[in-house]
Order: sequence, then structure tokens, then C-alpha cells
Amino acid sequence: MPAGELRYPSPVPSTLPSQAMETTVEEDEAWLWAQIKAEARRDAESEPALASYLYSTILSHSSLERSLSFHLGNKLCSSTLLSTLLYDLFLNTFSSDPSLRAAAVADLRAARVRDPACVSFSHCLLNYKGFLACQAHRVAHNLWTQSRRPLALALHSRISDVFAVDIHPAAKIGKGILFDHATGVVIGETAVVGNNVSILHHVTLGGTGKASGDRHPKIGDGVLIGAGATILGNVKIGEGAKIGAGSVVLIDVPPRTTAVGNPARLVGGKEKPSRHEECPGESMDHTSFITEWSDYII
Amino acid sequence: MPAGELRYPSPVPSTLPSQAMETTVEEDEAWLWAQIKAEARRDAESEPALASYLYSTILSHSSLERSLSFHLGNKLCSSTLLSTLLYDLFLNTFSSDPSLRAAAVADLRAARVRDPACVSFSHCLLNYKGFLACQAHRVAHNLWTQSRRPLALALHSRISDVFAVDIHPAAKIGKGILFDHATGVVIGETAVVGNNVSILHHVTLGGTGKASGDRHPKIGDGVLIGAGATILGNVKIGEGAKIGAGSVVLIDVPPRTTAVGNPARLVGGKEKPSRHEECPGESMDHTSFITEWSDYII
Amino acid sequence: MPAGELRYPSPVPSTLPSQAMETTVEEDEAWLWAQIKAEARRDAESEPALASYLYSTILSHSSLERSLSFHLGNKLCSSTLLSTLLYDLFLNTFSSDPSLRAAAVADLRAARVRDPACVSFSHCLLNYKGFLACQAHRVAHNLWTQSRRPLALALHSRISDVFAVDIHPAAKIGKGILFDHATGVVIGETAVVGNNVSILHHVTLGGTGKASGDRHPKIGDGVLIGAGATILGNVKIGEGAKIGAGSVVLIDVPPRTTAVGNPARLVGGKEKPSRHEECPGESMDHTSFITEWSDYII
Amino acid sequence: MPAGELRYPSPVPSTLPSQAMETTVEEDEAWLWAQIKAEARRDAESEPALASYLYSTILSHSSLERSLSFHLGNKLCSSTLLSTLLYDLFLNTFSSDPSLRAAAVADLRAARVRDPACVSFSHCLLNYKGFLACQAHRVAHNLWTQSRRPLALALHSRISDVFAVDIHPAAKIGKGILFDHATGVVIGETAVVGNNVSILHHVTLGGTGKASGDRHPKIGDGVLIGAGATILGNVKIGEGAKIGAGSVVLIDVPPRTTAVGNPARLVGGKEKPSRHEECPGESMDHTSFITEWSDYII
Amino acid sequence: MPAGELRYPSPVPSTLPSQAMETTVEEDEAWLWAQIKAEARRDAESEPALASYLYSTILSHSSLERSLSFHLGNKLCSSTLLSTLLYDLFLNTFSSDPSLRAAAVADLRAARVRDPACVSFSHCLLNYKGFLACQAHRVAHNLWTQSRRPLALALHSRISDVFAVDIHPAAKIGKGILFDHATGVVIGETAVVGNNVSILHHVTLGGTGKASGDRHPKIGDGVLIGAGATILGNVKIGEGAKIGAGSVVLIDVPPRTTAVGNPARLVGGKEKPSRHEECPGESMDHTSFITEWSDYII
Amino acid sequence: MPAGELRYPSPVPSTLPSQAMETTVEEDEAWLWAQIKAEARRDAESEPALASYLYSTILSHSSLERSLSFHLGNKLCSSTLLSTLLYDLFLNTFSSDPSLRAAAVADLRAARVRDPACVSFSHCLLNYKGFLACQAHRVAHNLWTQSRRPLALALHSRISDVFAVDIHPAAKIGKGILFDHATGVVIGETAVVGNNVSILHHVTLGGTGKASGDRHPKIGDGVLIGAGATILGNVKIGEGAKIGAGSVVLIDVPPRTTAVGNPARLVGGKEKPSRHEECPGESMDHTSFITEWSDYII
Repeated sequence: MPAGELRYPSPVPSTLPSQAMETTVEEDEAWLWAQIKAEARRDAESEPALASYLYSTILSHSSLERSLSFHLGNKLCSSTLLSTLLYDLFLNTFSSDPSLRAAAVADLRAARVRDPACVSFSHCLLNYKGFLACQAHRVAHNLWTQSRRPLALALHSRISDVFAVDIHPAAKIGKGILFDHATGVVIGETAVVGNNVSILHHVTLGGTGKASGDRHPKIGDGVLIGAGATILGNVKIGEGAKIGAGSVVLIDVPPRTTAVGNPARLVGGKEKPSRHEECPGESMDHTSFITEWSDYII
Repeated sequence: MPAGELRYPSPVPSTLPSQAMETTVEEDEAWLWAQIKAEARRDAESEPALASYLYSTILSHSSLERSLSFHLGNKLCSSTLLSTLLYDLFLNTFSSDPSLRAAAVADLRAARVRDPACVSFSHCLLNYKGFLACQAHRVAHNLWTQSRRPLALALHSRISDVFAVDIHPAAKIGKGILFDHATGVVIGETAVVGNNVSILHHVTLGGTGKASGDRHPKIGDGVLIGAGATILGNVKIGEGAKIGAGSVVLIDVPPRTTAVGNPARLVGGKEKPSRHEECPGESMDHTSFITEWSDYII
Repeated sequence: MPAGELRYPSPVPSTLPSQAMETTVEEDEAWLWAQIKAEARRDAESEPALASYLYSTILSHSSLERSLSFHLGNKLCSSTLLSTLLYDLFLNTFSSDPSLRAAAVADLRAARVRDPACVSFSHCLLNYKGFLACQAHRVAHNLWTQSRRPLALALHSRISDVFAVDIHPAAKIGKGILFDHATGVVIGETAVVGNNVSILHHVTLGGTGKASGDRHPKIGDGVLIGAGATILGNVKIGEGAKIGAGSVVLIDVPPRTTAVGNPARLVGGKEKPSRHEECPGESMDHTSFITEWSDYII
Repeated sequence: MPAGELRYPSPVPSTLPSQAMETTVEEDEAWLWAQIKAEARRDAESEPALASYLYSTILSHSSLERSLSFHLGNKLCSSTLLSTLLYDLFLNTFSSDPSLRAAAVADLRAARVRDPACVSFSHCLLNYKGFLACQAHRVAHNLWTQSRRPLALALHSRISDVFAVDIHPAAKIGKGILFDHATGVVIGETAVVGNNVSILHHVTLGGTGKASGDRHPKIGDGVLIGAGATILGNVKIGEGAKIGAGSVVLIDVPPRTTAVGNPARLVGGKEKPSRHEECPGESMDHTSFITEWSDYII
Repeated sequence: MPAGELRYPSPVPSTLPSQAMETTVEEDEAWLWAQIKAEARRDAESEPALASYLYSTILSHSSLERSLSFHLGNKLCSSTLLSTLLYDLFLNTFSSDPSLRAAAVADLRAARVRDPACVSFSHCLLNYKGFLACQAHRVAHNLWTQSRRPLALALHSRISDVFAVDIHPAAKIGKGILFDHATGVVIGETAVVGNNVSILHHVTLGGTGKASGDRHPKIGDGVLIGAGATILGNVKIGEGAKIGAGSVVLIDVPPRTTAVGNPARLVGGKEKPSRHEECPGESMDHTSFITEWSDYII
Repeated sequence: MPAGELRYPSPVPSTLPSQAMETTVEEDEAWLWAQIKAEARRDAESEPALASYLYSTILSHSSLERSLSFHLGNKLCSSTLLSTLLYDLFLNTFSSDPSLRAAAVADLRAARVRDPACVSFSHCLLNYKGFLACQAHRVAHNLWTQSRRPLALALHSRISDVFAVDIHPAAKIGKGILFDHATGVVIGETAVVGNNVSILHHVTLGGTGKASGDRHPKIGDGVLIGAGATILGNVKIGEGAKIGAGSVVLIDVPPRTTAVGNPARLVGGKEKPSRHEECPGESMDHTSFITEWSDYII
């Protein structure tokens, strides 16, 4: 990606190694961690009032997993769940499962590339509640799959209290995920979210309440879900689909189509919905359907 | 309710004494507390990392009201409102008003029976921000009715900060309430909520802004309000009514009918709306109206 | 305004000096601070359990800016951003920029006059997360404009964690603002909000995702935005306009008109929208458009 | 005691009811609590910066036992022993054992009457680490006698960490005790301290290490032990005896005699030691033996 | 050691493997850790109010080094030195240096065997400030020898604040050490303490102030130093020597002799001091010299 | 002072401007603050684990008074006396009284020059409890002299709890004071300490208990008081006098003489005590009197 296309205020470094270039996960993580430390060092120098924060959260750590475990442990602790216990839990989990670290790396890239307001990787690591909630969820999910459910649920509760992001520990979340703003996101127990998905704040992937089994949405790769959208029931949102802000979706949405409205309908009509080419989960185009929608509705 | 009908992952104990069996409130509370301790003991044994948390919040206490007071005091405290002060306030209030304890018991049952994701009573007691916010609100309401308004409002503020649940201390809330997920719920000063109501996250029972008197919704018994629904003004939602997710309701909704859409209309039409038999606040059927709705709209 | 017209439970003091009476900002602030102290003193006397809180937050301070800096420092601190550091930052910023203090005074008045549930200025100062988030945002914005961006973003992150209010530090917010309930408000980087605007909870002033430049809404003076409304893109909401609760707005809205629905349309029609006379941001009339809307829709 | 005899800087109120006047313990406690509240109210008015502290520790409480339990709970808590747990423990113990409350009252009087630097009862209640350590010890001793030894020892450890006062929970301490300055006091497991004893800082009532049974000093009523004195072994310090500062005592000391020096010898000689009339534990006369001593030594 | 010889209240387990039996350090540590867990489990069962504390400090951990690191991290942390940072530091140091773990094991045994008031290993691990200060010192010393002096000194400062035990990080401390009561112990930069030494509270191993080089005492193996003793300058206290409580020692003390008094002199005379057979650092006989001393003095 | 005379491990910078060179207090403070920042910067670079601590305590501050106020506020705060309140109190006091800042500078120099273990000014500023307790005492004394006694006494209590240093707020302390190790120091209400005094740990300047008026020692300039010395009553310790460790002093000590023993006597005899030339408070020679003493005693 040519630097010239990059966004204000600070470009994604042009030396960003292409993931297609067959870098290993370890190299990728090491490269990103070096970037984060460089960013933090620059910020610590320019802003002494923040240097203590940057040293404790980033610059004193030897790896991304240690930094992240420290930061999450301190954010999610309470008087009855101590930071040392959580730090230990996070560090052990991130250390033993490389896929969690790879997912964190992919999520950091996703925020940096897709969100114009994301000025650096360290900005996302430190400040994005969606990013932090998602990493903590992955640890809770890991505990859930090991049948350590009470601990997974306690962690789930802390994430919901602290970040106002409520993802059931059983929910399966892919990688390269951007939870933008994130406040109010609710994702139910049997939901599945694919890779490279972007989800805005106040989005619900909810159950229908009718059944106790598989009852939550399945979100394909590259989907974009606008702010405040509510998707209910075991419906399938096809890959590259787009869900308009504020929509209430109770139906399947075919790949690369757009659903909008309350109740949501497909842009272009149920029979022959319009299809788009780009991957909205990555392009973050929330509103290109405006014209079509207006046409459709009026 | 036959055990065979019960839900994954752990059935409601078949020995659950029927409330119809004329158990006293005290017996009911004692039975539930014994269940909660048994659950916590089992979890503490299987998960040493959580045992400290379970002992401090549940197993070291001699009653539900002490456990709840301790947990709320520690959750809601701040550097200027100490946990010991809040613990004392909660314990005194719960001890002196049996109706608050009975309501907490009914709410615990409601979560356990209605929410397929609720695996145990202790899960709800410890982790459901909706449950905890509701119990703390009841204490704030109790203070409000005793004209201890500044304290009630300070508590209200803490509940809103910590749980992102904003229930005005003057609002009257029944019992057997399930606030599912709960983030973003807003309930105004003159709202009234009946018994056995289920309210999803992001629901607003708001004022119209036109008047300073009685200006918020009145929700009948057994109502189900879907995620993100906004009900505004001194309207009446009849018993057993259902409000679709994402609806914006500015009108009265007759008993056992369903309102959906933005602005919300009655399924079946204003003149002869469809009536359902079951109590949606208890069955939690969010989406059975889909077919009807589609029919109505298109 | 005759006291007889004022609202339950406590009237706005009849001695409130009219802003039109050419009081200086300093006089205005001094008057308000005296009111707040008097309220807090009265509450401390009537409620000993709250007196410690009222002394530490209000009564021990010599000015509004000190009280506010103390309260925000204690609310927003974390284990890695200490209260003393934040207190210092807030106090220095409020002390050096009188416009921030004037804006705080205007916001306190706005809550007191527009929100029937606001019983006193001290109630707003201590308990309104929208008020507190807005003042903290103004400090973050001040840092942003001085190119102290990493610190501004760290503060932004704390505001979003603690209050669930997510206002990008670059966003420009006028004065006399009421963020009512406030949970879930999201305001993007290039948004601009005028003076005397009222914004309910769950409101989004979001980007379109298509561009990295100027991509968020511009809200004129005196606008009222209902709960859960989502306004996306660089659209212009004219002065005195009203946005219905739950609306999804992707279009410009002319001054003193009302937009409702998903997608939002102008009440009265695109060609000749109805115009209202009063300033809805100040009158807080959320629902007067009900009749018209119903007429329009059906 | 005539008021004229009382000391600078503030006289003990002349209305202090004589204990000889057959007041009940309850009346005595109530009178003292009223004094403490009056003192705290006066201080809160004169010093707003301290008012929050005074309200939280004294003025918001309805009884001495609640105030003391709150203060000790907050002083002695740690991240693994929460203030709410300790508050509960203290309150339950003080409430159920009136003798602990009577002892606290007697200790407050002792400090007020004997220590010229003690300006008020509330000064002692809030600020005297010796007073606070002693009350907490009494609770630990109470637990010890109920065979709740692990909890007693955990409390013992907290007292030693926080106040640098190390009294084994098995040690028996009388009432009307003044631990002046208190830092570094060590009292062993089988020590016994009578009533109306004054003990300065750095005093050790230690074991001989030779035996595991009864191996610590027995201190009679009205004894005064000077700063840094070390008394070792199962020796008997007779009532009204005085131990000079810095003495190392390995012998019995007869009633109303003085032991000084390292090793300590009796003033006046082993055979016919000088006897004094007054009760040094109450008169706090540390140095009247100087002349005699010098005479003796030289 | 036959069980019959052991002390009230709880005997050292008769299955205590003799260190002479050629157990490895790992076996020894594992055996001790199993004992500690068994003790904690027993106490948690008998005292629910303490169970949370016991689980968080001991029962949730998989090894002594993790338990100790957690406990020290939480005890020594401050608002500017976070518990997670300290936990990490302690755990890394204990994990990488088996000699520190062996020393901790030897110290736990020392307290259990020598101190009649030590009822269990877990009692010492959790509650003995002397034990905890000594283990933290060893970590500080480890940092010092790696030239990480600023960190060592910061840790030193925390130990002195929290435990009132002030051991310079450069001081060399052997193993099998009992710091009994411990408050007020001061050990200077160039001091050396051998193995199996017992040191009571308020003991100073101080410098002479005259020189900046080697200027503190050298304490041989098996020495017993009584409460409040002050040893100044680069003097040599021979192995098995005994220093009386309150002594001020400015001279060398030959092996297996006793020094007492201020200034200290050798019992039996400078020329032919009495020699004792047993090892006082292990027998803890503080006072057997009384008769001799009296004889000597008078 | 030639660098060659300076001590291991790090020399006092040779550029240290001579106080005799007529530097102003402001220049002196500025020079010292620059040194401290340089030291902290060097340490932060060499030890990333400590960098956060160094930035928060030193490097983020613009002046010594801000750094000190921050550090003391965080050290001395409690759950009922918040760090922000204390920070404000310290900062206001240090800012308004230059003599307090000059005294802090003199104390930092005293530690750096007199204590061979003091490796840097920042070491003293951050880690010396004696230094920190003394600065906090000066603020308490300042409050005392302004008749803000309850606040002064509350601060006194916190200093005694946190540092185990108990200096009555009425006591007058000069400048250039070294409290070495400091644990257990007790200084009474009417004590006066001159300039350039060095006081070791466990030193008591106590009252006689006989009177309520002027009843504590008066310590002249340049005095050295050894560890554990107890000085009682309104006695006068002349300038440049030396008090041996462990002494119990009940008599006046003439200038430049030495008192030792329990009870203390003058070295050389009461009639013609030996006089020394140097200033022991600055030379810190604790033991040069050994020979003389031995001679005297034996």
C-alpha cells in the first residue's frame, strides 16, 4: 500500500511487512512490538506527564504478551479479583497459545488500517476498549473451551463492567476484528464471527429467546456491521455483507449484499439484491448504500 | 417444569420448591442461598484460581443479604464513597426490608429460568450486571421514598458509572425482573415496571421532555422489551405485551399484543391487533412475530 | 421565570441572575459556586452518611474549578494514571482557560433548567456522567489543540471506560450542552456541536468510513437529538432542528425542522418540511412530532 | 479531679462524670461518644479540608463501636483482607462483647488524662496508633479465646504491619491502658498486663526463649514502663512499679518500686528498695527517680 | 527431633524429613509446600472468613515461589510501584535462583522450630514480617549484585516502609535466619550475617560513621542477638556467640561467648570469657546468662 | 570539597556549588533539582522496570516542590485522606513557604554528604523515610503554627503509621537534618532540634511525664545522637555534643562533649568532660569515644 494513500494524522509505516510476504507469526509479532515500543518511546519523550504510564504499560515490558497481560490485569482487576491473579492468568494463556497472540497482532493491524482515527499501534493497544475487550474475551473463550467455565464467566463479567462490551465466553470470534468505539456491543453464546469483520458500537448479535441451543447469528468473513445494528437469531450474514446502522436484522443476508432498515431488507430487493465488490469489513464504507436505499424506500 | 425440558449447560435443580407450594419467603430465600453456596463450593473446588473470589463474595457469608451487600459494596465503591459505608447501607436496608430480599430471590429465579446462558444462581448473583444494578436500585429507591434523596442520587450515579445501567431512584420496579445484558438501560423518574418483566439491553423508558410531572412509561406485568427498544412518554404497555427490538414506541400497547418498528405499530393493525397467549416476559420469545410482521409490512 | 412555574422537586432559585443582565463570567461562576456550596451544605446536614462525600468533593474546595478537578481526578484515575497527576492536569487546564470554566457553568445551568430530574446544581456536578464526561472532554480537546495528542487520547480512553461516553478529543463541543443519561454517546473526530444543544444517550455522531478527512456531522445551535439517534457522515443539522429518538440520519436537516425514522425523513416532507418555533435543544420536547409523524407515515 | 488540675492545651471537660458516681458502662460510653462527636463537629467546622475525614470516621456513625470498626477496618485492610470483611468482624465483636467497649472507653480516658499531648478524645480515637492497635488486639484476643486462631494471627500480622505494634493475640491486656507513641512495642504470647498501665514505645515484654510454656512477663496494675525498656521472661512486675526508660529487666520488681538500668536493679537496693506512693501508670512520672538513681549509681 | 519434645500449640510434623537424610533441595521445597497447603486447607475449612485470604495467598498457587511472589507483591506494592510489576520481579528472581528458594525453606524451618509462638509453616509464610522482609531483601540483594541498584534501593525503601525492617540491599544474609518480631531491625551496607542466626526486634548492625568502606558488623553462624541490641562498627561476633538484649556492642565477641550490657562486656571477663556449648541462634536461649551476668556485675 | 575526599559508591558532583559562594536559595534549589532529574534520567535509562516510578515521582514534575508533594501525597494517603487532598496541601504549603524548600534542600545535602550509603540525591528524595517524614513534619508544623491543629495531628498520625517516625507537629526542627534509617524516632511536643543535627533510628526525645508545659529536650546545632538513644526531659544537649548509641540521657550535656551509657555520663567525667573539635552531627563519627569510654568505665 503506497504511503501516499495513507491517512492523517500519521501514516502506517511504509516498511510494514506484507503478510503475504510469508513472514512468520513470530516475525510479525516482533516487528509490531518494535513499532509499538518506538511509538511509546517517542510519546514518552514528547509528553513527560504520560511517560510513567507509557513505561509501566509498554516500555518496561519485553514482549507484546507481557504488556497486554499487564494492561488487561490492571484494567480488569477489582477488589475481589486482584491484578496479580489476572496478570498471571493472561500471561499464562497468551504464552501458551500462539494463536491468541497472532489474533492480537491481526486486530492491531485492523484498527490501524481501517480506522482513520487510529494514530498508532500503541494508541490502539492502550486505549481501544474494543481491542482490549476482544483480547480479554479470547482468554475467557480459551478458559471456556477448557471447561474452566466459572472463571471464564467471572472474566466475562469484568469485561462487561469495565468496557461495557458483553461477549459471551463461548462465542467464537475470528481475527483481524475491529470493534470500533465498542461501548454496548453484545454478542451471545452461540454466535460466530469470521475474520476481518468490523463491528461498530451498540451492535447486538442476540438470541431469539425461543431456544436454548444454537440461537445466535453467524457472521461471515469481511462483514461490516453499522452502529446500533441488532441481528437476532441463528441467521447467516454472508461474507462481505454490510448491515446498515440501526438496522434490525432477523433474516439471512447473502454474501456481498447490504441489509438496512428496521426490519432490515436487502438493498435491491429480496429477489435480486445488489452486490458490491469490495470487502466492507475492511473498507469500512458505512454509507455508500444511501442513494440505493433512498431509491429503494421511496 | 419437567427436568427434561431444561436447558444446557446445567439444569435448574428439579428439587426447586414450587412457589405455589406455599413456601414462605424465608424458606424460599434459605433454599436459594443453600443452592448458591453449594454451587460456589463446587466451583471453588474445581477452580482454585477463583476460590478466593468465591469465598470472599459468597462462601464466607452467612446469608444472601450479607453476600449481596458485600458484593455491591465492593463493586460500587469509589475513592470518595467507601466500600464499608456502602456495605453498611446495603446491609441495613436489606436487613430491614424483607420485600427487597424477596425481590432479589425472584430476580435470581427469573434469570435462571428465562436466560439459557445463565448456568447457575451464583452465576447471576456474581456476574449479572443487570441483576446487581437492579438490587442496588431497589436500595436507592428505598432511600428515595424515605426522603434521603441526595444519598439515593449518589448511589444512582455510581450504578450508572459502574454498570452503565441508569434507573432513576424514583422509578418503581416490580419483582421477577430480568435485565438481560443490561448495558445502556435507561429508566426515567416516573416510570413503573410491573412484575415478571424482561428487559433487554439498551432499552429506554424515557420522558417526553414536555412535562415535569408524570412523564415516563408504565410497563405491565409479564412484558418483554427487546434490545434497543425506546419507549417514550407516559404511555401504557399492557400486561403480557411484547416490544420488538429496536422499536421506538410512542403509543399505548394493549395487553398481549406486539409492537414493532420505528415508529412502532401494532402487529395485526391498530384496530384488531393480534393477541398472543403466553407471557413473553417469561418465555423470552423475541422473534415469533417475524412472520406476522413481514406480512404486515410488505 | 416565576417560581410558581418551576418544577418538582426543587425550584431553580428565583434569584438566579439573568445572563442577559450583563453579569461577568466571574460573577456568574461565583454565584453558581455559592449555590452549589449551599446545596451541598444543606445535603450534608440532612444526610450524615453523605457528608464525607460532600465535603471531599465540594465543601472542602475554594472554587468550582478545584472541586471539578478533584472530582474528575478521582473518577478518571486508574492504577496507571494516578489521581494526583490527573488532578494537576485538570486544575492547570481549568485555571488557565476561563472559557472552559464558562462552558462548565453554562452546562450546569443547562442541566438544571432543561432536565426535570435535575434537582440541584450540585446534583449535576457530582452525579451526571454526561456533564463530567463533557468537562473532561474539554480538557482533552484543549490538550489536542496544543498537540499533546497522546495525553489527550489517554484521557479520552479513560472517559470512555469510566462513563461509557466516547467523544474524540478533536471534536468541537459548544457550551450550554446537556448530555442527558449520556451512556453510549459516541462523537467522532471531525464532529462539531454548537451551543445549547441537548443530546440524549446512545446518540452517535459517526463517520461514514469512506474518507479520512472531514467525515462527521455538524450540529447547529439549539438542536435536540433523541435517544439512540445515529447521525452519520459530514451532514449538517441546522440550528434548532430536532432528531427523533432511534432515527438514522444520513442527510442534512434544515433549521427548525424535524427528522425521524430509519432512514430519517423530514416531518412534513422533503420539499416543505414543517418548521417549529421554539428551540428544542432547550425545551427538550421529544415527542411533539408524534401526531405529525403518524400523519406523515400512515 | 478538679478542673484546675487539668492540663494544657485543652482541659478535660469539667462535666466529665466521675466513674465513681456509679454511672453504668452504657452511660459512660454514651457520654464519651457525645464528647467525641462534639469535638469532631467543632474540628470539621474550623477545618474544611479535614471535614470529609471527620465525617467518614466519626460524624456519620451512630456509635463509638461503629466509628471504631470503620476506622480500624480501613486502617488494617489490605488487598487480600478487605475493609468490608474487617469492618464486619470488628463490628460483630464490639457489638457482642460490652467489655471490649468498656475497655476502649477506659483507654480513651487514660490517654486524655495522662498524656499532656492528647488534646481531645477524638484525637486519640483517630490518631493514636497505640490506642488503635490495642483495640484491634482485643478483637484478635477475643478470636483467639474462641479458637479462631488463624484469623487472630492474620489480624495480629496486620496490626504489626500497619502500626508497628506487635501484641500476640494470646496476650491478656487489661483496661485503662495507654500505649504512648507505641511504635515498636512487642508483647509476647503468655504476657499479662494489668489495668491502668502506661507503656511507652519500643517496650518489649518478651520471652526467654528457653521454654515454650508460660514465658513472658506479668505486669501488675498501675505500672509505668518507660521508653525502650525490655522485660524478659516470666517475671512479675508488681503493682504500681516503675521501669526506667532503656532498662533491661530480668528480675521480679516488687510493688511500688522502681527498676532502672541495664541490667535493671531496684532503686534503693535489692534488700530495701525505695517505695513510692503514687501510681506511676497514671501519673506518668518517668523521671522522678533520677536523683535517687544517680545517688544509687555514683 | 522426637515429636515428644515439640511445642504447644501444634507440633512440627513428625514426618518432617531430616535434612541430614540427603533430601534434595527440590524434595525439601516440595515437602514443605505440601505441608503449607495442607495447613492452609485446614484453616480455610475451619474459618470461612479467612478462606478467601488463604486461597488468594496460598491455595490458588502451584508452588511456594508463586505464593511468596504474590504475597510480597501485594504487601510491598504502592500506588507508584504496582503489584503486578513486583510480582513479576519476585517470580522471575525466585524462579531463576534456586538458592533463594532454599534459603526461604530454611527460614521457614527456623521459625517453626525455634519460635514457640510459630504454630505452622503457613503462619510464618503469611504473617511473619521478619520472614517476608528477609525474602524480599534477598531479591533486592540479588538485584544489587547484578548492578540493578536503583531498583534494589526502591525495593529496600518499600520493605522499610511496610515492615519497618531496614536491611541495606548490599548486606549479605545467610540462611536459616529467624528475624523474630522484626520491627525496627536495621542492618547496614557492609554487614554480613551467617547461617542459622536468630535476631530479635530493634537490633541494629550499624556503621561507625567514620569510614565509607567496610564498616558494619560480621555475624558468625548460629549467633543469637537479643532484642534491642546495637552492634556498631566492623566488629566480629564469633560463631555461636550470644548478645544480650539491650546491649551496645563495640568490640569483637569470641565464638560461643556472651556479651551483655551497655557498653557490652563478655560474661566471665575479657580474659577468660565463659563458653557455652549449645548454639544459641538455634536454641533461642536469651536469658541463661542472667545468673552469670548478675554474678559478674555485682 | 575535592572529589578525592568523597565516598564510595558515587561521589558528590564536584560542580556542587559551595553554599559559601553566596548562591541564592532559588539557585541552590534549581541546581539540586537539575541534579535529581539527571540522576533519575540515568536510572530510568538503565532500569526500564523502574522508569515508570521515576517518571511519575520525579521526571514528570517541573520542580522539587511538585515532585515532593506528589511523592508525599501518594505515600501518606489513606482511604479516608485522599492523595489529591494531601498533594494539594503539600503543594500549597511548599509553594508559599520558601523556608520549607530551603530546609528540604539542606536535608538532601546532609544525607548525600554524611551518609556513605546515600548514592544520590534522588535516592534520598525517593527512598529515605527519615527525609520524607521530616519534610511532611515541616508541613504539619506549619499547619500547627497557623492553629490548624486537627489537620496537623491527622498528618502526624499518617507519618507515624507510614514511616514509623513520630514527631509531634509542635516540635521545632532545624535544617540540614539527617534522620538516618529513622524507624522508631519519637520527638515530643516541646522538643527543639537545631541545625545540622544527625539523628539515628530509635532515638527518643521524650517528656518526663511530670509536667504539661515545656518538658522535652533541646538539641543544639551539630549534635549527633546515636541509634536507640533516649533523651528525656527538658534537658539541653549543647552544640556539637555527641550521644552514644543506646544511652539514656537525663542530664544536660555541655557543648562538644560526649554522653554515653545507661544512665548516660559524660566521657571524661562530670567535672572536666573531654571536648572534641569536629562537629559530630556532620562527621557522623559514632564510635570514636569507644576507647575513652572503656577507659572511663573500667
